[in-house]
Amino acid sequence: MADSYTDIGFAKLDLSRAERTGLPETIFCSGKTAEQLHAILTAFGQRGCSVLGTRCSPAQAEFVIANGAKVNYDATSQVITLGTPLPAIAGKAAVCCAGTADLRVAEEAAQTLEFFGVTVERHYDVGVAGLHRLLSKIEAIRTADVIIAVAGMEGALASVVAGLVKSPVIAVPTSVGYGASFNGLSALLAMLNSCAEGVSVVNIDNGFGAAVQARRILQLKDNH
Amino acid sequence: MADSYTDIGFAKLDLSRAERTGLPETIFCSGKTAEQLHAILTAFGQRGCSVLGTRCSPAQAEFVIANGAKVNYDATSQVITLGTPLPAIAGKAAVCCAGTADLRVAEEAAQTLEFFGVTVERHYDVGVAGLHRLLSKIEAIRTADVIIAVAGMEGALASVVAGLVKSPVIAVPTSVGYGASFNGLSALLAMLNSCAEGVSVVNIDNGFGAAVQARRILQLKDNH
Amino acid sequence: MADSYTDIGFAKLDLSRAERTGLPETIFCSGKTAEQLHAILTAFGQRGCSVLGTRCSPAQAEFVIANGAKVNYDATSQVITLGTPLPAIAGKAAVCCAGTADLRVAEEAAQTLEFFGVTVERHYDVGVAGLHRLLSKIEAIRTADVIIAVAGMEGALASVVAGLVKSPVIAVPTSVGYGASFNGLSALLAMLNSCAEGVSVVNIDNGFGAAVQARRILQLKDNH
Amino acid sequence: MADSYTDIGFAKLDLSRAERTGLPETIFCSGKTAEQLHAILTAFGQRGCSVLGTRCSPAQAEFVIANGAKVNYDATSQVITLGTPLPAIAGKAAVCCAGTADLRVAEEAAQTLEFFGVTVERHYDVGVAGLHRLLSKIEAIRTADVIIAVAGMEGALASVVAGLVKSPVIAVPTSVGYGASFNGLSALLAMLNSCAEGVSVVNIDNGFGAAVQARRILQLKDNH
Amino acid sequence: MADSYTDIGFAKLDLSRAERTGLPETIFCSGKTAEQLHAILTAFGQRGCSVLGTRCSPAQAEFVIANGAKVNYDATSQVITLGTPLPAIAGKAAVCCAGTADLRVAEEAAQTLEFFGVTVERHYDVGVAGLHRLLSKIEAIRTADVIIAVAGMEGALASVVAGLVKSPVIAVPTSVGYGASFNGLSALLAMLNSCAEGVSVVNIDNGFGAAVQARRILQLKDNH
Amino acid sequence: MADSYTDIGFAKLDLSRAERTGLPETIFCSGKTAEQLHAILTAFGQRGCSVLGTRCSPAQAEFVIANGAKVNYDATSQVITLGTPLPAIAGKAAVCCAGTADLRVAEEAAQTLEFFGVTVERHYDVGVAGLHRLLSKIEAIRTADVIIAVAGMEGALASVVAGLVKSPVIAVPTSVGYGASFNGLSALLAMLNSCAEGVSVVNIDNGFGAAVQARRILQLKDNH
Amino acid sequence: MADSYTDIGFAKLDLSRAERTGLPETIFCSGKTAEQLHAILTAFGQRGCSVLGTRCSPAQAEFVIANGAKVNYDATSQVITLGTPLPAIAGKAAVCCAGTADLRVAEEAAQTLEFFGVTVERHYDVGVAGLHRLLSKIEAIRTADVIIAVAGMEGALASVVAGLVKSPVIAVPTSVGYGASFNGLSALLAMLNSCAEGVSVVNIDNGFGAAVQARRILQLKDNH
Amino acid sequence: MADSYTDIGFAKLDLSRAERTGLPETIFCSGKTAEQLHAILTAFGQRGCSVLGTRCSPAQAEFVIANGAKVNYDATSQVITLGTPLPAIAGKAAVCCAGTADLRVAEEAAQTLEFFGVTVERHYDVGVAGLHRLLSKIEAIRTADVIIAVAGMEGALASVVAGLVKSPVIAVPTSVGYGASFNGLSALLAMLNSCAEGVSVVNIDNGFGAAVQARRILQLKDNH
Repeated sequence: MADSYTDIGFAKLDLSRAERTGLPETIFCSGKTAEQLHAILTAFGQRGCSVLGTRCSPAQAEFVIANGAKVNYDATSQVITLGTPLPAIAGKAAVCCAGTADLRVAEEAAQTLEFFGVTVERHYDVGVAGLHRLLSKIEAIRTADVIIAVAGMEGALASVVAGLVKSPVIAVPTSVGYGASFNGLSALLAMLNSCAEGVSVVNIDNGFGAAVQARRILQLKDNH
Repeated sequence: MADSYTDIGFAKLDLSRAERTGLPETIFCSGKTAEQLHAILTAFGQRGCSVLGTRCSPAQAEFVIANGAKVNYDATSQVITLGTPLPAIAGKAAVCCAGTADLRVAEEAAQTLEFFGVTVERHYDVGVAGLHRLLSKIEAIRTADVIIAVAGMEGALASVVAGLVKSPVIAVPTSVGYGASFNGLSALLAMLNSCAEGVSVVNIDNGFGAAVQARRILQLKDNH
Repeated sequence: MADSYTDIGFAKLDLSRAERTGLPETIFCSGKTAEQLHAILTAFGQRGCSVLGTRCSPAQAEFVIANGAKVNYDATSQVITLGTPLPAIAGKAAVCCAGTADLRVAEEAAQTLEFFGVTVERHYDVGVAGLHRLLSKIEAIRTADVIIAVAGMEGALASVVAGLVKSPVIAVPTSVGYGASFNGLSALLAMLNSCAEGVSVVNIDNGFGAAVQARRILQLKDNH
Repeated sequence: MADSYTDIGFAKLDLSRAERTGLPETIFCSGKTAEQLHAILTAFGQRGCSVLGTRCSPAQAEFVIANGAKVNYDATSQVITLGTPLPAIAGKAAVCCAGTADLRVAEEAAQTLEFFGVTVERHYDVGVAGLHRLLSKIEAIRTADVIIAVAGMEGALASVVAGLVKSPVIAVPTSVGYGASFNGLSALLAMLNSCAEGVSVVNIDNGFGAAVQARRILQLKDNH
Repeated sequence: MADSYTDIGFAKLDLSRAERTGLPETIFCSGKTAEQLHAILTAFGQRGCSVLGTRCSPAQAEFVIANGAKVNYDATSQVITLGTPLPAIAGKAAVCCAGTADLRVAEEAAQTLEFFGVTVERHYDVGVAGLHRLLSKIEAIRTADVIIAVAGMEGALASVVAGLVKSPVIAVPTSVGYGASFNGLSALLAMLNSCAEGVSVVNIDNGFGAAVQARRILQLKDNH
Repeated sequence: MADSYTDIGFAKLDLSRAERTGLPETIFCSGKTAEQLHAILTAFGQRGCSVLGTRCSPAQAEFVIANGAKVNYDATSQVITLGTPLPAIAGKAAVCCAGTADLRVAEEAAQTLEFFGVTVERHYDVGVAGLHRLLSKIEAIRTADVIIAVAGMEGALASVVAGLVKSPVIAVPTSVGYGASFNGLSALLAMLNSCAEGVSVVNIDNGFGAAVQARRILQLKDNH
Repeated sequence: MADSYTDIGFAKLDLSRAERTGLPETIFCSGKTAEQLHAILTAFGQRGCSVLGTRCSPAQAEFVIANGAKVNYDATSQVITLGTPLPAIAGKAAVCCAGTADLRVAEEAAQTLEFFGVTVERHYDVGVAGLHRLLSKIEAIRTADVIIAVAGMEGALASVVAGLVKSPVIAVPTSVGYGASFNGLSALLAMLNSCAEGVSVVNIDNGFGAAVQARRILQLKDNH
Repeated sequence: MADSYTDIGFAKLDLSRAERTGLPETIFCSGKTAEQLHAILTAFGQRGCSVLGTRCSPAQAEFVIANGAKVNYDATSQVITLGTPLPAIAGKAAVCCAGTADLRVAEEAAQTLEFFGVTVERHYDVGVAGLHRLLSKIEAIRTADVIIAVAGMEGALASVVAGLVKSPVIAVPTSVGYGASFNGLSALLAMLNSCAEGVSVVNIDNGFGAAVQARRILQLKDNH
């Protein structure tokens, strides 16, 4: 195991992660100063690494761009990327979400997948309150090798989708809702208790984590 | 308001409840001794009142029967009744449940309704993991004036049904599940956060409460 | 089932909801950008649909009005409406609340009902701390076909009202309170555990949901 | 401060508590072996102290009686006492409870008060589901100098009583209920959030603690 | 029971509360608009009632003063009063708090008591981390007829004080702390579980509620 | 979609699940009576279906065997199977667990996988308290196409493994632990918050669910 | 690092733990079958290792003794040991507990320390409800190099002790209590929020963990 | 025991704490006004005491400096100090943290230790997602007499480190994370449930508390 990293004072950049886990280092931008973010991006850039950051606020993005970082930034998903996307791999992921309020999380998943070389089909606003919307898309969803289901409130989308497909479903509870949603707890618990098989769950609002898991899964299709 | 009651020492029997709220007093048997239950049933019986008890254990039922109470007891629902059912009223209720483990609660609802004079249609084992089971019944469910949806685990049944019908849905979360279902909390939160309109919720495992609420609702159809 | 919707990019507008569930689509404005809200309202308006939005902030309302939407906006309830109200239906709803701090939620319920064609009687500030206020109104409350009880803190209003009437009570816990109210959890739990029969509960602060449920219930009176 | 105690190996008996706090040591029997309980009772008895134990199981009581302890035991309240009650003091306490399932806790409070020399009036089964039962007793309750309100489920009794009287109300939530009562949490939170003034709360099922607090309060009437 | 109130549109002012419960109406200012607060104060003022408000923000106070209300406002306690204090009653209350961060709550209790005619002794910054500070004051604290113990974090002050005195202790958990204090939950639970007898508890940060309870208790000394 | 099922009164057996989702119906035995379990197994057996049940108690197993069902039962995993396993598929799964107390859950996962035609490698007792045990196995674990990580207490195994491999990790929190493990909550939260990428989570103690998800994932390797 | 272990099928015995962490492997007996426990003890015994087990039920102990294991078993602490204790080290630990109900946990700590070569002083039943008991012992407690404070309910003992001594305090919350103690949660939160410095906390009822931490700390005195 | 303090009106400064507990008084700046902070610092400064404050906001620091206090302030750790550090003591502490987002808490610990005379080695960004980073530092970490492990999210760092060293580990959960980290709850629970021995835990984000505990522990090395 070639285990190397670069120490830039306040952080140890994990340069061998790609070799070890198949994907490059990524950055959780929230809670970092714009200066720290810029320094980390610069260090990766100087080594020619591609890198992706999530939860990048517009202010952070503005700062790193103003200071010369050659990044792409998408305000809906709050995803920032540096360098070229990974080469395309075989297979296809579907990203489904229940409502328009889930867009940030769904797009975080979709854009992460695309930067990691995965073909993505989006099926948005297919929440179970109007089941016909989901059913009208289900044949398309069934063609995906892996499915990410994003929903807040009661999070029923994951169960309903998983009962209708053969592919693995990665469920992403979102903090969409109020009151007894307890910032996503209701959707999280619902997804963990799915009566349908084939659902595994990531953290609340963690579209990125779902995308990485989907990418790891798609390697099985690719690696032979 | 004629507010009368009978004091039998450890309890005040609410004899005017029927006049005040439209339904007779009922008994939550759990936590009462078999002797207390017998005394309460006897007091009502002597006054010619019909009365219904829930969560009556087989041991409690055996005791009161052995001591001469003229009751009917159903082991599945744990419902015990004394006296004649209420006269039939107009309208129809549907009781749906997600899985066989929800039967006790669903039957508590159904048998309470029937004792209170309501026509009931049962649609059991229609959980969303196999959506076709629910969809095959949905036209029948739509004919009901009020619907009781009973489900544990992620409790998605309430949302999915409510999105497909025009009638009010009374959701009953059950403690069916394990781990992160936290004894029904996951289903409760999911039902409270239903993305579909037309859902209101009663306590975990409270089939009786849902039945009473459905009965109150059906009075609107009856009372004109 | 005629299941149609219009896709406006980030949302699928459910045009057949009225046919399916009896009520038109509504909008949860919170968490949407003012631009998204305007686009949705415009799409419905162009199709001649009536539509109602809740949790519409003054800033959102100002934006959509400034951009030409023909809406009505009420700052107390944060309800925004477009188009004509639904035709009046038979029956009457009562909206009760415990204190002045519950006004936003109570008015959300009342104005939603009125837009949906329901006659509403308001009984505000009738919390159980001064029981005579409630008792002085109870005869009027008893004349309602369905009752919405709105309360924060210990939420006792729902139990007390339900014990005094024959109509179904829809309980709305509010986030009014502090400390161990845990943003409405105490009222929510209290209402779910009502010792009085005839109470079902919606999400914390969900005056809208209570109104829709009441409207569904009143259909029973209307539809014959 | 005369601070003395007796060390009996596994416990230090606080013999000066009466002098320091006005009441003798008491024993929480649950979790102690019958042997330990017997040893503690014996040690107090040999010093001529009166002592009261709570949560004494029938098996524990049987053991200590069989081993010669001169105790009184009440199975309903699970209270065990040794020696003579304290001298009577001025004033009067009312113990109210919502339902028959609250009897153990209510009697624990009442019998503790009586052993500590307090006159007690019991008002049982006056829960708010049938408000007329409470209102028929309220004049009597108003004559008490201190009121203990015992209730499970939604615990509304404390708020309603406190809004109708001038005396301090000590609220005792009980674990009576199921599902979302979460073993008394719902009643506890409700009582802590009482919209009526004049309520302070003790632990779930802690009838004893309420009695001690009531006794401390009644000292104000006595000590002048 | 003379049960009267005045309806000012959005609120029903409880004018007979003094007769019913011994204390005048009070106002929880938080969550009310400055205009609502002003209207309520004005209505009471016009009837010559004394009234006390808690959680009054500086901005609210500024508004009502600027609009002519003859109030007193204290920024530390956020207490606002209108009219003359109640006549002095017999007895004395002690208000103890653990640290300087508890001052707002402690002063809310102390100033409420003083407005209600109670003599108050303050013992601040006597937390158990430096036990000698408390022990140096304990003889003075023992002279009080009722004691209010205010503490955040682990809330041990209530237990320690109650073990050293004969008077009833009203415990007020505060939201002082961070992390696992969960906004006062740790102190609340600790106080509810006090191993010392003679503690009853009010809501987190509810200095006012503790004061009212203390005032009710002191009536026993006064009323004979 | 061929959506058929068989109604055996208290349950609707989902006979088309294999076609729809790729795997046959399975049975959660806990909470079913032995008679119900026997009836369900018989119904599947008569149709020649293979079926797998989890959480089958020894008593349940004994009953169904005594009544003639041709099942295999494993007491460690509490897995019961009827009929022939599914045909072997390509790829390999690793099942890792932290300690011996996690064996039931780990074996539930492993035996489910084997019944579903998957090759399994077991790596047990590799918890992070003795990291060398895990590191000595890591090369073998890296050869698996999908990894199931089973751990209770602090659940760190999932994070550590996921940081060392390229394959997707399905994390199964277990209820192993006591006190602040809160029946698996601590492990669940830890796994949801994994700082390492490539972890998705199923319900507490849900070895079965992890196995199904792994099986769905392995289809990607198989289906081309 | 010499990292070796022995694989006995269902467990990997960590034979190099002593070298790595300074203490031998220990066994958490709860949740293991008596047979598994016996096998583990035997494996260690055959290698001449000393080993200590906690939470060993009387039934487990009886089984392993009946099958020839040369163990010592203490029923109060539920500690079982095999082989000779570790050599005595310098320094002294104090184990304090609040009440007699905390004895099992306190003795688990004390006997673990003694098996690990540490001199222990016990100060039991020194809870803060009778502060004089603690103060009478405080000079003795001050002479200890490390202090373990064991308490349930409100857990105030840790704060009070830590404020009076210079040595580090290891706090052990216990599940002693009922109702709002939530099985030790109240004591746990209180100890984590100690207003006194010098407190760190282990899991609820984890006397063993506190002992190991105390032993690691005492090494500093020993190792020079 | 020389127990003295100075009363500055709103606070009692504990001047004898150094004598009693070995360390001077410290200040939790959060929640104090800048004026209160300045007054406390001035009072200590006039008496020649060294004092350390935590959670000092830049605005607070600016105010006290502008008003003449001779303090040192570090913006990363939010630590403010007045006067000379304590004399150096024997031994060495290691402060490890999982990621850059944990820096504030880690530096609070490190700088507190240094002000209290302790030699500190920092090992930052050694989270378990890239285990090689930690393993490359482990020999250095092993040379420390006491180790502080700071981590948010799943908090696995504490378990992994404790399993690899002989020294006591003080674990500090941080609020780093989102969603199901519940502001540090996940890390807190994980650390309390560490499967590795030798971990005790302080409050979420309490770097200061960990440092004090480490300093108390190091006294054992120093005091002989």
